[in-house]
Amino acid sequence: MKARVTVMLKNGVLDPQGEAVRHALGALGFDGVGGVRQGKVIELDLAPEITEADVEHMCEQLLANTVIERFDVEML
Amino acid sequence: MKARVTVMLKNGVLDPQGEAVRHALGALGFDGVGGVRQGKVIELDLAPEITEADVEHMCEQLLANTVIERFDVEML
Repeated sequence: MKARVTVMLKNGVLDPQGEAVRHALGALGFDGVGGVRQGKVIELDLAPEITEADVEHMCEQLLANTVIERFDVEML
Repeated sequence: MKARVTVMLKNGVLDPQGEAVRHALGALGFDGVGGVRQGKVIELDLAPEITEADVEHMCEQLLANTVIERFDVEML
């Protein structure tokens, strides 16, 4: 079984990486890009007994900093 | 309009970051995690005239290193 975890900075938390991407796209001539937020995606190969709750526990303990990041777990 | 771009290392390309996450999960007592791959996700706020083809162009020019990474564009 697979799980995909997406971790993004919470709204209101400054995202310098996304801002750098936005600037770079503008410099390359791509107009029409208003805002950019960058996060990470983690794909896990899991044993069949691992549940979505287990993966959420992994997020809280390691994969996301829940003070400034929100996460989303998707079982595939 | 929004687009979500997911960039992952191609299969066969070594992913030390994912490997580090796998080790750390094991050290925390999470068993049953076979493999971990880590990538990035970029959320773009776009003007309405921007098409999926434009976003793919952005990926090829800036957001992904297509030698070692694959990308996936999703228009939201």
